[in-house]
Amino acid sequence: MDERLKKQLDFILEIDKEKNILRQTHLSGHGRRENDSEHAWHMAIMAYLLRDYSNEPVDIAKVMLMCLIHDIVEIDAGDTYAYDAEGLKTQKAREDAAKERIFSLLPEDQKEELIALFDEFEDFSTAESKFAHAMDNLQPLLLNNSNGGGDWREHGVSAEQVYGRQRKTTLGSEKLYEVTDHIIREHVEKGNLKK
Amino acid sequence: MDERLKKQLDFILEIDKEKNILRQTHLSGHGRRENDSEHAWHMAIMAYLLRDYSNEPVDIAKVMLMCLIHDIVEIDAGDTYAYDAEGLKTQKAREDAAKERIFSLLPEDQKEELIALFDEFEDFSTAESKFAHAMDNLQPLLLNNSNGGGDWREHGVSAEQVYGRQRKTTLGSEKLYEVTDHIIREHVEKGNLKK
Ligand SMILES: [Ca+2]
Repeated sequence: MDERLKKQLDFILEIDKEKNILRQTHLSGHGRRENDSEHAWHMAIMAYLLRDYSNEPVDIAKVMLMCLIHDIVEIDAGDTYAYDAEGLKTQKAREDAAKERIFSLLPEDQKEELIALFDEFEDFSTAESKFAHAMDNLQPLLLNNSNGGGDWREHGVSAEQVYGRQRKTTLGSEKLYEVTDHIIREHVEKGNLKK
Repeated sequence: MDERLKKQLDFILEIDKEKNILRQTHLSGHGRRENDSEHAWHMAIMAYLLRDYSNEPVDIAKVMLMCLIHDIVEIDAGDTYAYDAEGLKTQKAREDAAKERIFSLLPEDQKEELIALFDEFEDFSTAESKFAHAMDNLQPLLLNNSNGGGDWREHGVSAEQVYGRQRKTTLGSEKLYEVTDHIIREHVEKGNLKK
């Protein structure tokens, strides 16, 4: 087998491990905890179906690929819960090391391409990145909403904390942020989110 | 919320159930059984990275979306193991009913679009469909190979059965079929596949 293909297959096998990285979100139907690969799969399909709600036109193939790979670094760095202040402090350093190790399995050109795409997601500045982040926010919100806000109650999260993250959905999609805001308000009213 | 967006969100929540549909393949590292959404996520990334090995040029965004949605019908119809002759007889009828129910949750235009894409995958005639099928074959082969062929041993599968399915990878990618053939030969030699 030639070297390029061998590297690609090594990377492909390595990312299988993302299926073992558990998130704090639970599957609908009060299911088990979701893993990163499931979350990414869901986000990519959502991005395609909801693309017309992006504030700006997007290259949807790019958004989908961004969604699919955005959590690969968590194979080494682990999932950092959005409302875990301590974890968030070290997240960047842990993810940078992981990024270098994991994407280096690929041929150089594909390593550079995927790192650039990962960095673009993290930078939150392009239309594609903003819309992908809207998916990253909306996907767990929909699951948690379907489960009566259990993930928030479990962690004693406040509305302010949730807004701190979810408000950025407006940067990607004002229309989808209306849904977000509506859901958060309902859960504050029901007492699932602390005021 | 307007009717179109409500339908889209209903569909998005419904497909969360795909994360509970277990396959016969086990994750690398002798892990648990894989589910359909994880398999689809893996296939879509593989398709992107390996696209240059497609026999014919492909619209890669289309291939990726095809990979992501190709197993949604299994939410109702269940996973049919590639070497389960009885299950395969009723598979089409079960999947047709599922296709109608699940995609009907979407707005009409998106229902038609996704059903057309699903049918294109099933028809196995376009370049995109052939390459997506190559991913559908190669992905579990790589995992099973990494686990010493355990999935084949568990089911007492023969080389002939495996070739019956995997040989079709040549239609999508002759280059990737070389890898496939090499892996199968090794497992026949080691006695993991019956001759
Ligand atoms: Ca994350």
